[in-house]
Amino acid sequence: MKVAIIGTGLIGGSMALSLRKKNFANTIYGVEQNEVNARRALERKIVDEILPVQDAVAKADLTIISVPVNAAEKMILPILDSVENQVVFDVGSTKSSLCNIIKNHPNRGRFVATHPMWGTEYSGPDAATESGFEDKTVVICEKGKTDKDALELAKKVYGILKMKIVYMNAEAHDIHAAYVSHISHITSFALANTVLEKEKEESAIFEMASGGFESTVRLAKSNPDMWLPIFQQNRENVLDVLNEHISQLKKFRSCFEKDNYDYMRTLIENANKIKKIIH
Amino acid sequence: MKVAIIGTGLIGGSMALSLRKKNFANTIYGVEQNEVNARRALERKIVDEILPVQDAVAKADLTIISVPVNAAEKMILPILDSVENQVVFDVGSTKSSLCNIIKNHPNRGRFVATHPMWGTEYSGPDAATESGFEDKTVVICEKGKTDKDALELAKKVYGILKMKIVYMNAEAHDIHAAYVSHISHITSFALANTVLEKEKEESAIFEMASGGFESTVRLAKSNPDMWLPIFQQNRENVLDVLNEHISQLKKFRSCFEKDNYDYMRTLIENANKIKKIIH
Repeated sequence: MKVAIIGTGLIGGSMALSLRKKNFANTIYGVEQNEVNARRALERKIVDEILPVQDAVAKADLTIISVPVNAAEKMILPILDSVENQVVFDVGSTKSSLCNIIKNHPNRGRFVATHPMWGTEYSGPDAATESGFEDKTVVICEKGKTDKDALELAKKVYGILKMKIVYMNAEAHDIHAAYVSHISHITSFALANTVLEKEKEESAIFEMASGGFESTVRLAKSNPDMWLPIFQQNRENVLDVLNEHISQLKKFRSCFEKDNYDYMRTLIENANKIKKIIH
Repeated sequence: MKVAIIGTGLIGGSMALSLRKKNFANTIYGVEQNEVNARRALERKIVDEILPVQDAVAKADLTIISVPVNAAEKMILPILDSVENQVVFDVGSTKSSLCNIIKNHPNRGRFVATHPMWGTEYSGPDAATESGFEDKTVVICEKGKTDKDALELAKKVYGILKMKIVYMNAEAHDIHAAYVSHISHITSFALANTVLEKEKEESAIFEMASGGFESTVRLAKSNPDMWLPIFQQNRENVLDVLNEHISQLKKFRSCFEKDNYDYMRTLIENANKIKKIIH
């Protein structure tokens, strides 16, 4: 099968590497505006050829849009205008806004709204890896609006990537993504800023940084070009979760202020219930 | 050398396993009040024998106190009362309070205040591991108040554990620990509570949880028996950092409320500077 990958970064590049390795994609066309990334995508054999977007889509059986969510919104209508029997996926971290833009498009059925729930704090073709998606979940939204053959192709692709498929409407996806992904990035950015502020005074502080700190702060390395449009598109949900998170932190603060360590124990014991979910 | 390990959990147990493997400790006495943990520590050959605290300290050349920081405070004076030429370390996550309690003790010189900066979200002898400390930092406080031979022994032990030694006064340690360790636990507990609150309504949410969420929330599994006394002893510093962290989160909130994504980009780009520190 011929596959076009629009955006040869962490997600698109990883999908390309994996689909080629599993002999699903025999030709991969890349679309990449960044010249350095385009060169690296060719050097790493992530793609066979770099083409303009319209040429890549026309030649491919399957087009995967793996650019920041604001860029995906700008290109989705002309891409859908140009397809006939081909299939188009996006892989973005927000779903409502994009699904809404295309809802009345005559080729809506050729499109599959997907969100493979894997990533790292790194970006670009050099961050791409063959096996990142394995055993993770992919969300497919609005499956009823997708043609049967296009949905089957999505199931096949994500099966090859060894992902577990979950179906959800776009609004539910965006709420859940705010809780299990977007807020983690905000807290990590804010934690990095908290500590970097202090570090101006005390450079010795980071000699002590260990695994626990690294774990909570690693997402703070994430690329603003990817995350700002996500936050912007999912504003309402992220703001709700952020408000809830601030109020949870204030409960801890109040325990300190009142020396109420019994209630702090209750808060910690409740947090420990995450053990049942994250093993 | 004969070593007594008071508290055969994650830290004490890991030190015992490593010091035995490196042939530094040929006999290890364990002190453990929890019967299940005592049995597991024997079964895993973390310790050779379980003894009452006074017997273990009397028989050992080196005693390592690896119990929660509140329990360490309760036992430190009788232990120091009983030592002659032996050496005693603690390994707790706070240093000022303990150092203050013993500051005028005639055997103060036999004591080394240490904090090996490694741990996981798990506890107990089954969580102990041979090589956890490697390449991490250990902080030694108030080295000037420690006898020369006792300090040399600490350097030897942490050298065997392949840790990088940093010297600091106890107050500076506690401030830095609040920034690079204690606050990470608070944010993680609060994040878990934020998401668990939502999960009451929507159980599907966790099907989507991926690496990023797991990374920021894993510390929320940590044991309150260990962490509450740390927070309590380091109250002032943790409260300062928590206030700063809440105000950093409020900056993000304000950006959402005002749709000010330019300033949100500045906040994220600033957070990205953590790359220079955490690789």
